[in-house]
Amino acid sequence: MKDKVTLRHGDGGKHTSILIRDIFHKHFHNELLVNSLDAAVFDGHHGRLAFTTDSFVVKPLVFPGGDIGKLAVCGTINDLVTAGARPLYLSCGFIMEEGFDMKLLEKIAVSMGETCRKTGVKIITGDTKVVEKGSVDGIFINTSGIGVVQTAYQPKSIEEGDQIMITGGIAQHGTTIAVKRYEIKVEGNMKSDCMPLNHILERLQPYMGSIKLMKDPTRGGLATALNEILEVSGKGVLLLEEAIPIVGEVKSINQMLGLDPLYHACEGRMIIVVDKQKSGEVLEEVRRCEGCEDAAIIGGFLPTNLPPKVVMDTVIGGRRIVGPLEGDMLPRIC
Amino acid sequence: MKDKVTLRHGDGGKHTSILIRDIFHKHFHNELLVNSLDAAVFDGHHGRLAFTTDSFVVKPLVFPGGDIGKLAVCGTINDLVTAGARPLYLSCGFIMEEGFDMKLLEKIAVSMGETCRKTGVKIITGDTKVVEKGSVDGIFINTSGIGVVQTAYQPKSIEEGDQIMITGGIAQHGTTIAVKRYEIKVEGNMKSDCMPLNHILERLQPYMGSIKLMKDPTRGGLATALNEILEVSGKGVLLLEEAIPIVGEVKSINQMLGLDPLYHACEGRMIIVVDKQKSGEVLEEVRRCEGCEDAAIIGGFLPTNLPPKVVMDTVIGGRRIVGPLEGDMLPRIC
Repeated sequence: MKDKVTLRHGDGGKHTSILIRDIFHKHFHNELLVNSLDAAVFDGHHGRLAFTTDSFVVKPLVFPGGDIGKLAVCGTINDLVTAGARPLYLSCGFIMEEGFDMKLLEKIAVSMGETCRKTGVKIITGDTKVVEKGSVDGIFINTSGIGVVQTAYQPKSIEEGDQIMITGGIAQHGTTIAVKRYEIKVEGNMKSDCMPLNHILERLQPYMGSIKLMKDPTRGGLATALNEILEVSGKGVLLLEEAIPIVGEVKSINQMLGLDPLYHACEGRMIIVVDKQKSGEVLEEVRRCEGCEDAAIIGGFLPTNLPPKVVMDTVIGGRRIVGPLEGDMLPRIC
Repeated sequence: MKDKVTLRHGDGGKHTSILIRDIFHKHFHNELLVNSLDAAVFDGHHGRLAFTTDSFVVKPLVFPGGDIGKLAVCGTINDLVTAGARPLYLSCGFIMEEGFDMKLLEKIAVSMGETCRKTGVKIITGDTKVVEKGSVDGIFINTSGIGVVQTAYQPKSIEEGDQIMITGGIAQHGTTIAVKRYEIKVEGNMKSDCMPLNHILERLQPYMGSIKLMKDPTRGGLATALNEILEVSGKGVLLLEEAIPIVGEVKSINQMLGLDPLYHACEGRMIIVVDKQKSGEVLEEVRRCEGCEDAAIIGGFLPTNLPPKVVMDTVIGGRRIVGPLEGDMLPRIC
C-alpha cells in the first residue's frame, strides 16, 4: 500500500480496487459490503423505513473524543434515531485530495468500523473519489443511512406542560473544535461528545407512547434545534438556564471566547420531548444509558396563548428570547 | 435570495432553511421531502432493496448534454439498475464553496428535478454544507439511492457463448468532458451520453430470466467494466472492435488526442450480458428504448479452457488483451 492517496486510487480501476480491499473492506467487513458491486442488496422490511444523508467537512480531522470518521457514522445514526428508526445500513462516500495521508485514512476507517461494530450498524456500499491537490480540503465524507422505523413521533401533539430533556452536557463538540482551531491552550480534558445514540431509542421502547419528539442539536446547537421544534409544534418553549447541563470547562472557555454555548453543535446529545406525567421515569431511564448520566429536564412548552417563541429564564433572573442561529457559526464544525 | 452562496447558507440556521425552501424544495418538490426533518420516512417493501452511493466531482460543472446535477441523479439511478432494482428514492448531499453562484446552483437543482420527474424517482432527504473559499472546487454532489429489486442477476451462471451487449455508442461522456477541459475546438454537436436507464429495466422485464448481468461502464470505461465482469464470472471475454458502436466524431477526437475510447466513461450506457438464445430478441427490445437505438452485441464469453482475460479482435485483424484501467484516467471526469 502506498503511503499517500493518489489520483489513481479514485479512477475506478485497479488501484481503486486495491484501496477498497485493503482499507474499506478490511475495516468495514460484512457480507453485504463485500458481495456488492455498484449497489448492495438487503432484505426489505414490512414496516416503514427512514432514509437520511449527511456530509462531513470538519476541520481538524482528528480531535479529542473522535475524528471525522466517527463523527460521520454517529451523525447519520443519530439522524435516524430522530426519525424513531433503528439504524441498519450506511453508505459511505469519500472525497479525498490527492496526497492525502494513507495512515490517516486508515485511522478514519478504523474508527468508522469500530463505531459500526459497537452499534450493530453496517456500511454496505461505498464510493471513493480522489480530486487534484487543492480541489478539496483533505477529506470529506458523506454517510447516508437506512433504518427501520420503530415509533412515529407526533410533534403536532406537543402540548402545554410537555417537558424538554437533553441527554447530557451541551456544546462540548463545538467548543472542542474551537479550542483546536484557535489553538487555545486548555488544562484538563475537554473532548467532543461525539457518540452514537441508538441505545437510547432501544432503552426507551417501553415509553414510546409518551415521547413526542427526538432531535439532535447539531449545527446551530440547542438554540437552533429548539426553534425547529417550535416550528413543527407551533408551541412556545421556556428554557431554564440553570437546568441546562454544561461542564465548567466548556462554560468558561465560551465566556473567554465570547461565544454562546447554546449555539455550539453537540454530536452525541439528543433533545427528547416527553409527556409531563412520564418525564421523571424517562429521565431515570435515559440516565442509565452510557454517556447520558448528566441528562436533565431543561424546560417545557408554554400555553398557546403566549407568543410562540423560545424564551429562557437566565441564571441572573432575566428572561430572554433565544432565536435560531442567524449570524456566523463560530467555529465551522461539521 | 442572495446571488452567491455564503457560509451562512450552510450553518444549519435561518439561511440554510431559506436556501432549502427556495431552491431544493422548490425543484425537488414531493411530500416525503417537504415533510422530512433530519430523515425521511417511507413505506417498506416485502422484497429485497438495493442501496448505492456515488459522489460527483466533475469539471466542468455544465457540459454539452448535461451538468453535474443530471449526472448525479442518472449515475445513482443507473447504479440501482445494475443491481436489478427499480429506483425509488434518492438522497442528495451538496458541498459547496463559499461564493458559489446561486443561479448555477438553481440550474443544477432544476436539472436534478427534471431527471427525477422523468424517471419517477424522488429526492426525499438532503444535506447542504458550505465550506470556506478554496476548500472545495465549486460544488460536489453525493447522491445515494434506494430501489426495489426486481431481478437477481446470476453472474456465476455466465457461460461460454453468452452475449455481451452495449446499449449505445461508447466514450461520449468522457470525450465530451475532454473536449471541454482541453478547450478543443470541435465542429458538430458532441455531447455526453448522460441519461437515466431505468426504462431499459422496465422494458426487459419479460426477458429477465435470460439476462445474467447489467453493468454501467462509467469510470474506467468499457474496458474496466468488462474486466470487473470477468472477475465476478470467472469467464474470458472476446470483444469485436468493429461491432462496438462509436460515433465518428468521438473516434476521431480520441485518435487526435491519442486516447483510447475503451477507457472513457459512459454515463448513459449499460452493458447487458444475455443468454445466446435470447440475444436477438433482447437486442430488438433494447433498440426500442429511447436513446438506445445504436445498441449492439459487441462480443461474447469464451470457453473456460482459455485463460480468463478480456481480449479484442481488432479491425486491423489482430487480437489484443484489454486490461482494466491502470494508468492515469484522462480526463478526470466523474
